Amino acid sequence: MRAAVEAGAERFVAELVEWLRIPSISGDPANADDVRRSADWLVETLRATGFPTVEVWETAGLPAVFAEWPSDDDDAPTVVVYGHHDVQPVTPLELWTHPPFEPVVEGERLQARGAADDKGQVFFHTLGVRAHLQATGRSSPAVNLKLIVEGEEESGSPNFAGLLTERRDRLACDVVVVSDTGMWSRETPTTCTGMRGLTDGQLDLRGPAGDVHSGAFGGGVRNPLTELARLIARLHDDDGHVTIDGFYDGVVELTDAERALIAKLPYDEQTWLVNARSSTAYGEKGFTTLERVWTRPTAEVNGIWGGYTGAGHKTIVPAEAHAKVSFRLVAGQDPLDIQAKFRDWLARHVPEGIEWSMEFYGSGVRPCLTPLDHPAFGAVTRAMETAFGTEVLYTREGGSGPEADLQDFLDAPVVFLGVSLPDDGWHAPNEKVEIPLLLKGAEAAAHLWDELATSLRP
Amino acid sequence: MRAAVEAGAERFVAELVEWLRIPSISGDPANADDVRRSADWLVETLRATGFPTVEVWETAGLPAVFAEWPSDDDDAPTVVVYGHHDVQPVTPLELWTHPPFEPVVEGERLQARGAADDKGQVFFHTLGVRAHLQATGRSSPAVNLKLIVEGEEESGSPNFAGLLTERRDRLACDVVVVSDTGMWSRETPTTCTGMRGLTDGQLDLRGPAGDVHSGAFGGGVRNPLTELARLIARLHDDDGHVTIDGFYDGVVELTDAERALIAKLPYDEQTWLVNARSSTAYGEKGFTTLERVWTRPTAEVNGIWGGYTGAGHKTIVPAEAHAKVSFRLVAGQDPLDIQAKFRDWLARHVPEGIEWSMEFYGSGVRPCLTPLDHPAFGAVTRAMETAFGTEVLYTREGGSGPEADLQDFLDAPVVFLGVSLPDDGWHAPNEKVEIPLLLKGAEAAAHLWDELATSLRP
Repeated sequence: MRAAVEAGAERFVAELVEWLRIPSISGDPANADDVRRSADWLVETLRATGFPTVEVWETAGLPAVFAEWPSDDDDAPTVVVYGHHDVQPVTPLELWTHPPFEPVVEGERLQARGAADDKGQVFFHTLGVRAHLQATGRSSPAVNLKLIVEGEEESGSPNFAGLLTERRDRLACDVVVVSDTGMWSRETPTTCTGMRGLTDGQLDLRGPAGDVHSGAFGGGVRNPLTELARLIARLHDDDGHVTIDGFYDGVVELTDAERALIAKLPYDEQTWLVNARSSTAYGEKGFTTLERVWTRPTAEVNGIWGGYTGAGHKTIVPAEAHAKVSFRLVAGQDPLDIQAKFRDWLARHVPEGIEWSMEFYGSGVRPCLTPLDHPAFGAVTRAMETAFGTEVLYTREGGSGPEADLQDFLDAPVVFLGVSLPDDGWHAPNEKVEIPLLLKGAEAAAHLWDELATSLRP
Repeated sequence: MRAAVEAGAERFVAELVEWLRIPSISGDPANADDVRRSADWLVETLRATGFPTVEVWETAGLPAVFAEWPSDDDDAPTVVVYGHHDVQPVTPLELWTHPPFEPVVEGERLQARGAADDKGQVFFHTLGVRAHLQATGRSSPAVNLKLIVEGEEESGSPNFAGLLTERRDRLACDVVVVSDTGMWSRETPTTCTGMRGLTDGQLDLRGPAGDVHSGAFGGGVRNPLTELARLIARLHDDDGHVTIDGFYDGVVELTDAERALIAKLPYDEQTWLVNARSSTAYGEKGFTTLERVWTRPTAEVNGIWGGYTGAGHKTIVPAEAHAKVSFRLVAGQDPLDIQAKFRDWLARHVPEGIEWSMEFYGSGVRPCLTPLDHPAFGAVTRAMETAFGTEVLYTREGGSGPEADLQDFLDAPVVFLGVSLPDDGWHAPNEKVEIPLLLKGAEAAAHLWDELATSLRP
């Protein structure tokens, strides 16, 4: 398998470089045609790779690409690989050592916007499937292989849930493989087991009908800023637990085995703090930093405003107070249920004399978590361990993404095969990827189809 | 005395109307010449009234007017009357039923910007002193009468403390009479016994060195917005007392007699709430609403901001949080001492991982309170009772003003002779004053010089 990957490496890099020249920035309307050009390029290349069916899937926004390569084996399981072909904007341009859409290879490093996020990681699947066929002598993959490559991920996937609903039949599968994440480090390959969910919105408090003079009325009426502060302070107890009634109901608690696996990672708090741009770690009592950000739900204030905020002073009791509030959620929590519980909590704790409203932004993002004992995990772990030649550990993601939609709409477990490194510079200037790791990704993918065929066969 | 006032009423109103035509808005640089013109007009008119010494006192900003009329009595006490000749801006102009600088008399009502605040109330002293001389047959006032009429009060009196320091010798006095406040109501004449002080500034908290992703780091680091909210929530206990250590040290507590006098006022909470634009009264336990806003110190948040405050969402743990914080102070408290105590409190309560700074705006405004048993109070009360023919009650002001500077720099007690009504529309469109009340003010002033001469004579 490794020989087959290495034999295809040159073509793979040359093609990837070609793709990276297309500035498929979904966030800038000026680049809409480039995103379409990127989709068309991918269609041609996937056809050349051998996928019998390749289609551009239009959305209300920018197009996705779908490809399908059925297995000749009747009882082969079906796999959907997820990735995206759009990229982040490139400002500030002056911080790039080379133009972002003129890819440069320097040693093992390939620098360009999208090299790691996500073109490089989607594209290793073309090399992977070729190696899979060549090394096994098969004429079709060991699984029914489907690719869905989104074109709006960097713009918040506004049309992705709709696409999944509309194309549910075409995307039917037994497992989803997401190739849009990374690993712990070059020395410590990992796979992700879940992501946090999210629901957020805006809380508005209203006190006096207009700003009133704090000399004439201060001390005699409730100040909505003070009441907002009291609510926010009350959201956590002294141990950092969220105090909303029923907030933790149903939360899937970490098992001892999962805690032990997280503890096995070569974590260094000082390094983590540098990335967090913070001097001190802090959080819910009874959990380590990684457990807090990966496995525990949060109540966070993302913004706050009200009253006089200009230069100098204006001594008022203001009419209004506002906050952006977000909740990161974990398996067992449902965004809509948390929305209802927070409203109940507000109704109980906002005092007389203050009116309130809480507008949530949509229905939120559900958390996703695939149990460690799911056979697909064994498959991805073994495939990666064969490719990397070392033990593969487990991480989670604290963020929230369309992966939960895949899990929900396709009703299939999600596993993660990503090889990007924390210093690859996602969304930043001088984004790069390590070519040897992309080849490891291709090799792992080449093994994965056999592993999944064996693990998931009924 | 009343006959003398009534005889001079026509001239008084005619002259006041002339003065009100001058748009002496100190807050608008475009009106600076008008403020100067207002000062010059006042100089001429005070000379015509009979003041032997009248001077324009220049400042770094806009001019004040000083006038002096010594008593022939060698042991006469000296009184400084304080008022101001500048006025508030007039926007929104479209809400005025008549142009603000074209005074209109309708029945007993004189409408114009400055009619009540403060030209009408400064100016009744010209009628008062003429009536005082005419009715008593004196050739000079019973007190050494000094007037200081500021030109920047509506702009926060930026140069007034400097003027008081520079001119301290010329302004030396035994008592200050402030004519820049109002009465409880037409039926309930009152005089004010004190004003709250003030110190305020900006509190800044800093957490992460820049905004960080709340998915990747949320739950693992302190959020400065949450910490700001916790500090603000912690500023009061459940009974509404301020929790800053030593905050109430030295506070002059209300006597039973003072509480009884406040309770004597025909206070209606619903009416107060309408003015406070609020639905519910709330404040420190153990005090009535009037006691709270007049006699109790406060810790108030006037503004708050930090993190993402735009449309939609941005899920970050923000780098910074900010608040405008103000403290209203009462007799026995010192602004600089409260500043130091708040800093100490912050140093104890801001947690590790959060940096903070607190910038106070200047040295604050000291509270002023003249004890009810001071002989000057008896004098002003008797003078008003004679003029109004009814019992005079006592109020305080919850706001803060240059009156405290008068008390401090001139080292003299401050009493208040004002006749404006709560619905006179200070700082609002269609400001007006009741002419019969201005005449009562003049009559009270005419009596006051005799009363003070008797009360304060050594």
